Amino acid sequence: MRSLFIRNLKEGVLNLPEEETRHAVKVLRAKIGFSYTLKDGQGGTAEGVIIDLAKRSCVMQVGKVSRELRPKLGLTMIVAPTKKTERFEWFLEKATEIGVERIYPILTSRSESKTEKFERWNKVIISAMKQSKRTWLPELKPAMPLIDAVREILDSPCLAKNFFVAHCMDSVSLSGKTHLLKALVPGKSSCIAIGPEGDFTSEEVEEMLNSGAKEITLGDMRLRAETAAVVSVTFFAARQV
Amino acid sequence: MRSLFIRNLKEGVLNLPEEETRHAVKVLRAKIGFSYTLKDGQGGTAEGVIIDLAKRSCVMQVGKVSRELRPKLGLTMIVAPTKKTERFEWFLEKATEIGVERIYPILTSRSESKTEKFERWNKVIISAMKQSKRTWLPELKPAMPLIDAVREILDSPCLAKNFFVAHCMDSVSLSGKTHLLKALVPGKSSCIAIGPEGDFTSEEVEEMLNSGAKEITLGDMRLRAETAAVVSVTFFAARQV
Repeated sequence: MRSLFIRNLKEGVLNLPEEETRHAVKVLRAKIGFSYTLKDGQGGTAEGVIIDLAKRSCVMQVGKVSRELRPKLGLTMIVAPTKKTERFEWFLEKATEIGVERIYPILTSRSESKTEKFERWNKVIISAMKQSKRTWLPELKPAMPLIDAVREILDSPCLAKNFFVAHCMDSVSLSGKTHLLKALVPGKSSCIAIGPEGDFTSEEVEEMLNSGAKEITLGDMRLRAETAAVVSVTFFAARQV
Repeated sequence: MRSLFIRNLKEGVLNLPEEETRHAVKVLRAKIGFSYTLKDGQGGTAEGVIIDLAKRSCVMQVGKVSRELRPKLGLTMIVAPTKKTERFEWFLEKATEIGVERIYPILTSRSESKTEKFERWNKVIISAMKQSKRTWLPELKPAMPLIDAVREILDSPCLAKNFFVAHCMDSVSLSGKTHLLKALVPGKSSCIAIGPEGDFTSEEVEEMLNSGAKEITLGDMRLRAETAAVVSVTFFAARQV
């Protein structure tokens, strides 16, 4: 069954928001009597049946809302938007499908892209959530400097202990780089920061290491930034199997 | 150093092929004296220095060619091209970066795309190989019916023994689905067939099972076809760590 994204989902009669009406009418070719899975991105899902339909309005009868608790285990990704926004958007889509809890788009010294496209990026995430089985929408943070993102990570004791950084330079710390698959602890929420297209500077890496991050490697492949980010999300999923 | 793709690479003086000349002049803004890593996609790499340059010709002095043996371990992917070709091309790029040996674009009963874009797809793979550390170009097979691809797989005893199929239906075999990470044997070349956007038919799955394939799952996520393919390649890489 096709899915629609509805904030503040509750049982009863619902006037579909304009955007979802357009999607239902134009893309899904909705008709009276058609039913959809409604998701609020906060664990709530319900079935909705169209009971009235016009060009710009769509009324639904919403059934009982079932609620799924927020997953206890989550992955936070710190990733700089790429020069070509579609590569970053591709990461957002794939990370949502495979499983990510939170994304920090960050600005770094060598970031080539300084533009934030919050609304557009969030739409990519919503669309990926709708077609996946997920009921919790990944949290997209506003773009911020790396240092601010790190500060927020340190507020969570679990993330601060399971905080990893991937970069392409030689190891900056004495302990060297560990493979991400070996560094990840199964069952522990974690945070992974991925170097941008021009890589982190050594100062940026040192700042993260001073904050308790550990250096990791994804293997001896040379990966594009967005590929490294998706591989990291997949390795996190692999570690939970 | 930037890379160029040169078939039949050998030491000495080289007239760059037209396409790579255009790439060098227009994209890389090459000048006399500039040097590049040359790759032949068959394990050969060399350094090339531009010694003469005009609008449509570029002459290089090629240094000693070093050769890397074909990796003993390889992954063969059987994947149906997606309706939107860019999703399939994205898979080709990412699979090349992360590591794939051979790709069979297949036609299935429910494939929405029946068009082959061999030249274009091969360019995507060449471009991904150039920017990665790989010296072996993944082998792109011509598009063929699923059954012909399976027949070729069965010609290799190792692939025939390590042949896996991912689909979205309930398990067709009595033994059920195993998680890919548990089914893969480290150090063994393997083949993974991924259900197309409309999934394999149960007849197609049965044919593969009768050929010795095993049913696998990638976890309880619902993934787009091209995401499932990239996750499979990443799980194969994870299993070798």
